[in-house]
Parts: sequence; structure tokens; C-alpha cells
Amino acid sequence: MNTQPEAAGELFVASEVVRRVPATEAVAARLGAGQYVQVINTAGTQVVDCWAFRRGDIGEFMSMEHTRVEIGRVSPGVGDALYSNKREPLLTLVHDTSPGIHDTTLAACDVYRYNRLGATGYHANCTDNLKGAMASEGQDISWVPCPLNLWENAVVAPDLSQRIAPPVSRAGDFVTLRAEVDLTLVLSACPQDMAPTNGLDATPQDIHYTIF
Amino acid sequence: MNTQPEAAGELFVASEVVRRVPATEAVAARLGAGQYVQVINTAGTQVVDCWAFRRGDIGEFMSMEHTRVEIGRVSPGVGDALYSNKREPLLTLVHDTSPGIHDTTLAACDVYRYNRLGATGYHANCTDNLKGAMASEGQDISWVPCPLNLWENAVVAPDLSQRIAPPVSRAGDFVTLRAEVDLTLVLSACPQDMAPTNGLDATPQDIHYTIF
Repeated sequence: MNTQPEAAGELFVASEVVRRVPATEAVAARLGAGQYVQVINTAGTQVVDCWAFRRGDIGEFMSMEHTRVEIGRVSPGVGDALYSNKREPLLTLVHDTSPGIHDTTLAACDVYRYNRLGATGYHANCTDNLKGAMASEGQDISWVPCPLNLWENAVVAPDLSQRIAPPVSRAGDFVTLRAEVDLTLVLSACPQDMAPTNGLDATPQDIHYTIF
Repeated sequence: MNTQPEAAGELFVASEVVRRVPATEAVAARLGAGQYVQVINTAGTQVVDCWAFRRGDIGEFMSMEHTRVEIGRVSPGVGDALYSNKREPLLTLVHDTSPGIHDTTLAACDVYRYNRLGATGYHANCTDNLKGAMASEGQDISWVPCPLNLWENAVVAPDLSQRIAPPVSRAGDFVTLRAEVDLTLVLSACPQDMAPTNGLDATPQDIHYTIF
């Protein structure tokens, strides 16, 4: 595995090891301070729910409501940090090839959401994905912070309404985040297939990521 | 104490017992299903951070990120429910004499926020107010949901920026919320005096409330 960028100018080139997150599933990945993660919207239509927890203290986590206060924006742009509930930068958004439409305001999908949408029986969901991914790290998540929803297109309208529309990202778009502390990152390829979250065809897709 | 409205038309008239929340402090109040709480912005410039927890299960709480999904709006209007993290209505906003500018997106202030603003020593804050109020109910809050910030004026601009401006509410404005389940409500008269959250004079004020 190529764990270091070869030169600053190549920070945004995917390293040799590209990992897959299968559609509807999630992964937990450990990042050391100074490492980068590139999250790739392979199909272009897939929303990725992201969480981050400080390594060794899951009581400190990436918090959308604290981030909004500190950056003075509802959605982070390139150069913005993503703050914890202790107002410390955990990650910084350093590169984004997409049009920059991401959501910080909407809860992860869960069994209750799918029940309300009419699902019968169990439906895979980002909330359980988070819990499962963190359980694989030996961590019990009894409650769920609001995620950073990469590429979710639910922009706030001037009348303060929100409507979930298909992503405006394109196949192969990626964002690059730099870890500011040692942390555990969870990436969930959102299983939503009952709303246009993941495109008009409502078909969850694989995503990919690389760490360098 | 007048615990029942005398007639539907009088639902929005304060009952006989009006309680005070001193400036910078908080209170926990128990509401039964069907009861109403009227929160009064006595001075007109005071932001009130609100939380609600299902009685007997603080693992279910009023969640701004779940509410936004379910109501399709960033800020609730009259008639909107406030949903829990299990997507159940805990409260409904039934009346609002103010211009309806409330915030659901910004974290409660905390010691970290005041440190970043330059405070030296301990500064009262809504996060600790919540913990203290719930401790008085015998409940240990180890983490803090995003509050409903009544009258906080941090509306999202078309460019997705947010700036905390003075409230646009007027002295005596109130909101009335109906409890849909048995719950514990916490009201914190925000201690912010280092930003215009509570008016240009940055002077926290008493608020009042009544339950009927």
C-alpha cells in the first residue's frame, strides 16, 4: 500500500489501493493525523453518509451542528474544517471535484424512516450500518450523530423548505479529506431506494475510497 | 394551578401560574401527553434553547435532524411536529405570535465555544444548563442533541452561509407547544453575551413559561 503521497502535487491522485464499499453497506477505516481519505462517487449518483470519531474516545465525534457554528455555513466548502462536539477540527475538506453539493442537515436513514416510507420487513439503513461498522472496531454506538451526507442534494430553499433531489455529482467525482487527529471514519453507501436520494432510478451503487 | 384550558379558544391565553427562568439558567419541566407549554420571550431578545426527552427513556429525544427530514423544512412552522430520533412526534408547534424565526441547525453553546470567543474562566452555557437541569430530574446526559433554538436568528442565506443576528421577536412574543407523549422539556435562557444571539446589547434576559 502506498501510504504517503509522492509529492504535494499528487495529493489528489488516488493511491494504488482503492477499496470498495459495496452498495448498501458501510466500512470503518482508521486514519492517522495527517493522512488523507479520498471518497469516490464511482457511479456519480451515490450518497455517502460519513461519521468520524476520535480514536480512543468515541465521546468526541464529528458534529454537523458544531461545524455549522464554526464555519458559518450550512455546507462545508474546500478549506473548511469539520469540527467535533468539542469544537476541535477532526477533518478538513481539501479537495472536491464535484459541484460541492453536500448535506449536513438530514438524519441518517433508519428502520423508522423506511417504515414511514412503506417498507415491509427489515430494510438496510445507514444508522444500522454505522453501528455495525463501529461494532467491528469494538465500539458500541448507542446513539447516532447527524452524518455528513456527501453528495446528498437537499439544499435549503429561500423559503427554508428542503426537498431531496438526485445528486448533481458525476461518475468519478471525489472529495479528499485530511484527518487532523487520529480517528475512525465510517463511510456508508446509503441504501435508500424509496426516494431519489441516490438518483431518479433509486438504485444504490458501490462507492470506492483510498487512504494515503 | 390551572391545568386545563377553559375552552379551545383560550388555549393560547397564559394560565394563572407563570414561571420564570432566570437569565443564563435553565429548567426541566414535565409535560404529560396533551398538555401545552407556552414559552414567553419576555424581553423579546432572548433565545431559548429547548430539548425534549421521552419520559422514562432519555434515549428517545427531540431530534432536529430527524425533524427536518419529516417536515421537509429547516425551521418548523405552526402545525409542524417536532420528531424524535425514532421519528415519533414528541411535540407540535401549535401557536407562534413571533415572526417565526427559529433555528434548528446550531449547536448549543458550551465551554469550548466561549473559549474560542475569548472567555477566560468558566462561562455559563446551554450545554451545561441542559446537563444540570436533567441531573435535577435524576438523569445523566452524557451527550447533547442539537437543540431547538427558539428565536435564534441564524437563517440560511441563499449562498448557504449563516450569520447569527439579533432576534426579530418582540417583547411578550410566545410560542405554544403541545406534548404528544409524556416528556421532560428543558428550557435554557441562553447565556450568550459575546455575540448578538440575544440582541445587539448581548444581555441575557429572563424568560417565562406556563404549562396548562
